[in-house]
Amino acid sequence: MGDTIGPGGVFRGLRTIPVLLDICYDMEKLCPHALLINYANPMAINCWAINSMTKIRNVGLCHSVQGTAMQLANYINVPYEDVYYWVAGINHQAFFLEFKYRGKDAYPLLWEAMKRKEIYEMDKVRFEMMKYLGYFITESSHHLSEYVPYFRTTEERRRIYCEPRWFYLEICKGAWKPHFERIRRQINGEEPIELNRSHEYAVDIIYSMETGKPCRINGNVENKGLITNLPYSSCVEVPCLVDKGGIHPCHVGDLPPQCAALNRTNINVQELAVKAALERDRNAALQAIMFDPLTSAILTPKEIEMMVNEMFEAEAKWIHF
Amino acid sequence: MGDTIGPGGVFRGLRTIPVLLDICYDMEKLCPHALLINYANPMAINCWAINSMTKIRNVGLCHSVQGTAMQLANYINVPYEDVYYWVAGINHQAFFLEFKYRGKDAYPLLWEAMKRKEIYEMDKVRFEMMKYLGYFITESSHHLSEYVPYFRTTEERRRIYCEPRWFYLEICKGAWKPHFERIRRQINGEEPIELNRSHEYAVDIIYSMETGKPCRINGNVENKGLITNLPYSSCVEVPCLVDKGGIHPCHVGDLPPQCAALNRTNINVQELAVKAALERDRNAALQAIMFDPLTSAILTPKEIEMMVNEMFEAEAKWIHF
Amino acid sequence: MGDTIGPGGVFRGLRTIPVLLDICYDMEKLCPHALLINYANPMAINCWAINSMTKIRNVGLCHSVQGTAMQLANYINVPYEDVYYWVAGINHQAFFLEFKYRGKDAYPLLWEAMKRKEIYEMDKVRFEMMKYLGYFITESSHHLSEYVPYFRTTEERRRIYCEPRWFYLEICKGAWKPHFERIRRQINGEEPIELNRSHEYAVDIIYSMETGKPCRINGNVENKGLITNLPYSSCVEVPCLVDKGGIHPCHVGDLPPQCAALNRTNINVQELAVKAALERDRNAALQAIMFDPLTSAILTPKEIEMMVNEMFEAEAKWIHF
Amino acid sequence: MGDTIGPGGVFRGLRTIPVLLDICYDMEKLCPHALLINYANPMAINCWAINSMTKIRNVGLCHSVQGTAMQLANYINVPYEDVYYWVAGINHQAFFLEFKYRGKDAYPLLWEAMKRKEIYEMDKVRFEMMKYLGYFITESSHHLSEYVPYFRTTEERRRIYCEPRWFYLEICKGAWKPHFERIRRQINGEEPIELNRSHEYAVDIIYSMETGKPCRINGNVENKGLITNLPYSSCVEVPCLVDKGGIHPCHVGDLPPQCAALNRTNINVQELAVKAALERDRNAALQAIMFDPLTSAILTPKEIEMMVNEMFEAEAKWIHF
Repeated sequence: MGDTIGPGGVFRGLRTIPVLLDICYDMEKLCPHALLINYANPMAINCWAINSMTKIRNVGLCHSVQGTAMQLANYINVPYEDVYYWVAGINHQAFFLEFKYRGKDAYPLLWEAMKRKEIYEMDKVRFEMMKYLGYFITESSHHLSEYVPYFRTTEERRRIYCEPRWFYLEICKGAWKPHFERIRRQINGEEPIELNRSHEYAVDIIYSMETGKPCRINGNVENKGLITNLPYSSCVEVPCLVDKGGIHPCHVGDLPPQCAALNRTNINVQELAVKAALERDRNAALQAIMFDPLTSAILTPKEIEMMVNEMFEAEAKWIHF
Repeated sequence: MGDTIGPGGVFRGLRTIPVLLDICYDMEKLCPHALLINYANPMAINCWAINSMTKIRNVGLCHSVQGTAMQLANYINVPYEDVYYWVAGINHQAFFLEFKYRGKDAYPLLWEAMKRKEIYEMDKVRFEMMKYLGYFITESSHHLSEYVPYFRTTEERRRIYCEPRWFYLEICKGAWKPHFERIRRQINGEEPIELNRSHEYAVDIIYSMETGKPCRINGNVENKGLITNLPYSSCVEVPCLVDKGGIHPCHVGDLPPQCAALNRTNINVQELAVKAALERDRNAALQAIMFDPLTSAILTPKEIEMMVNEMFEAEAKWIHF
Repeated sequence: MGDTIGPGGVFRGLRTIPVLLDICYDMEKLCPHALLINYANPMAINCWAINSMTKIRNVGLCHSVQGTAMQLANYINVPYEDVYYWVAGINHQAFFLEFKYRGKDAYPLLWEAMKRKEIYEMDKVRFEMMKYLGYFITESSHHLSEYVPYFRTTEERRRIYCEPRWFYLEICKGAWKPHFERIRRQINGEEPIELNRSHEYAVDIIYSMETGKPCRINGNVENKGLITNLPYSSCVEVPCLVDKGGIHPCHVGDLPPQCAALNRTNINVQELAVKAALERDRNAALQAIMFDPLTSAILTPKEIEMMVNEMFEAEAKWIHF
Repeated sequence: MGDTIGPGGVFRGLRTIPVLLDICYDMEKLCPHALLINYANPMAINCWAINSMTKIRNVGLCHSVQGTAMQLANYINVPYEDVYYWVAGINHQAFFLEFKYRGKDAYPLLWEAMKRKEIYEMDKVRFEMMKYLGYFITESSHHLSEYVPYFRTTEERRRIYCEPRWFYLEICKGAWKPHFERIRRQINGEEPIELNRSHEYAVDIIYSMETGKPCRINGNVENKGLITNLPYSSCVEVPCLVDKGGIHPCHVGDLPPQCAALNRTNINVQELAVKAALERDRNAALQAIMFDPLTSAILTPKEIEMMVNEMFEAEAKWIHF
């Protein structure tokens, strides 16, 4: 997929950050108190850059937390309404630190479910990681396999763990046009605008900020001591209270050390990618990719350098340094 | 009143902490996952001690935040339902960092209201403090005047700023008996138990933990980086999200420096009072009172020593060191 | 003396900071890698302002640490060469956390010495503070009595604890002229320049930076986690390693809580004084003095306001806001 | 070599920690104020465990900092006495943050030296890392190649980057016997004890603690905010002042982000290895090795599990859990 870390994620960040910052600078002039809701990936890299450069209030949103919670309820065959979860980490790599069914720990049910072949097969990489780290992770097996060194280094491993089901690029290519067409028609009044409440957090946020009825979301925010064993100032995905005053991140404390370890390997990449974009520093982009767990399992620094040079050449139209 | 800091507050802490800790140690055996809701003063001193000695989940509650918010709505003559506030600091000395009416800053209305004699007269000490620090404080003028050096050092100042309206001790003496009597009769079924929902946070907490519908309270919790310019591990009063999983404190960040300064003068006393209780250290109790802003404005260390010795003698029945 | 905190110290800071910053801005252009050695009071306020506004390397120096150590050696009647000390806190209020004679704790000798009237009398305020806090403080009794509320609130207390021996202003008035005259003559070659090595740290610093032979000094530097229970970014006086690369502050950790408490009451004033100077904010100056322990023991906020207004008027020639 | 991280380093830690802790527990009884000087690897893992479990003063020593400085002086062909360096990071992976010759940055000389084939060939891995990260690292190319994923994943890469020159195990096997024999004879008075001062830091430490003349060493100590972008409580290798009072670590601040990133990948392993040893937790040992950059570049979690199980079996005699 290549939209979160790895060479693809880093370069997507290099292309996207300047655009997002321009939006922020416009907001500083036009609506300095408004809330920026960002849905664009690479989420952590983008939000980190925004938090470094502007005081515009912002939150990064994804549906992987509530989406995974629904999947988990499904795996253990209980109604979603009856599960409780407390999830924290970084975007696409947050951990179900608590997962409860009617007030009791539901992990035993999940370990049982994992034993059933048809369930394990649906989410191989996430169950493998849970087996060794002890916690379920928020992003799909397909995505997750890109953020760790283990499952994509050989053809055989890709076949076993990451059987391709669909190609993201093809989906995007096919999907965007009818999607944009529909929006255009809706704007022109040629088609009614449907008002079904989705499970996207943006809906809950607007509702709470307007009505004052509080809600809880998982948002991507600056780590100002929220997760105490991840680097200060990195971008973390934590539970947040939303009220009339906006987004208020909750204190999480230390992650279990193995979870923090996993997150740190990705934060390494994010930090250097942000530096590359903000300081227009090619070498920092190379360093970012040098610390990518999957890339570094395959290539030497010299080979990474060659690849990065090629990528800068190929993307010269969008990246001007 | 003498129940928060000062010689009275420190000694009340010395008497109360061992009792609270005994409750916690019982809970560790009997209900290790239960939530302790503490309403006993000295709030910050008690909660700090609890957080130092046990892992029992706990929160300290007071009604000064919502009570003051109601007063403020009243002072500016708008419905309570239409005000929004974000309050943080320490118990009895938290600041209305945001106070809004229908989405707009309501402080200008409050500054206007203060100019009216009948309103200023009702809350002299708090308005004096707001005049110089810029923020309204959560505890009543009567209480607040005990936490600062300014208003009680001479007879004249007491007359101007702290005209006595009632004597807390007399009220307590008169009130507790009929109160306990009524509870006894209710338990015995001789009188019906009324079920009117009060504005005490305990009610909201139980409701949210049982139904899963989130609410926001101000709770007294351990400062694990929540208010970044108050000492780590002190007890702070901050907005908290409450959900099925319990109390989740929100990150506040730095207080305005003048607010942090005021809080620190009180935290100095609290920290040493907690030390005195936990280490059974008379000298730390003396030091606590030596840093009490009001006491230190009146007495020399030597005089404080004499007073503290007398107090230990008088309370020897309850304090065994 | 009024040169450290209190109304005098705060206003001296307001007058001095702009001058020091101008020197720093010149250095940024002319010698960006040079080390600024500051000897001007109010030390903590000045250095804090410098650290907030410029990246110029700097250290604030005083002779109170080594001077007090010599006095202590004298009080316990042992050679200065045989004592070891580890001192930390803030300027003029740092604590002898360790004081040893030939490898053993020398505090018992000091407690003994204090019992002798002629020694106690020489340093009344410092011995009073040691009696209750347990640690000896670096600044002279005369100075120290200005930083705490206890000893100057009444005529009687001043007589008992702070018998005036000399008037700083008179001394300065009398001393500066011959001093400057001598320097002028030395520069003109009319008088030889004496090259006796003093015990001022500047001498040691230059020696170590030139020869590479390391030394230890106590320097006033930014608190970047050096003293962990004093506010981050405040100005602390801690042991520093000096080598060819310059000044390297050592990690101290937590001060004893009663020592941190004392320092915090002064840091409150410093922080707001720095804010006043940097933001040209009269109200912050008023707040600074409102938190001065001695001033707040004597005056109400309203009275402080009147005094501050008068001072701004009197110093209008030097303070332009 | 396998003595720092990787499967070999983790298991060496599991075997060594209990022995070191026993020494500390003895010291607590017999000499609670003595300084433990540890030279045993895995340095960071061992010291981290010691700092977690005992208050015994300790420092971990290695000669890689001064040894590398000598090599660097040699590479750029200047006398060692004329270079200045400021080195920080973790043991075996500390960075020459400053490297100066007669007061000027000597890195340009080093970049020049690297261009000469005979110099580059002597230290391939370190020069490759310097090329991309910008800083020279303290441990030899041979060692360093084990701590990163890049240079040992294929036979070809090992041949290019890590040509074996000697086998550590063989050296140890051959060396220990004559070495111990010599010590035995020295103790028995059959052979004179030579008193040549080595460049090991232990010598300098004892000298400074006895004479009071300060020196600077690089020691492995607990990260209590010394390196601000590495995890709190991890074991870092930083410049320390040594005086009569012992070892005083200096504040370093943030490492360049790419250096912190590299260190974090190793700290991940260390933290979990310490947890495994202290909590006697096989799963934490597996997790430690799962995060080893080199192992994770080669094996899947399942394969790592199999290897770890085999190793526990093979070492059952020394590891009792």
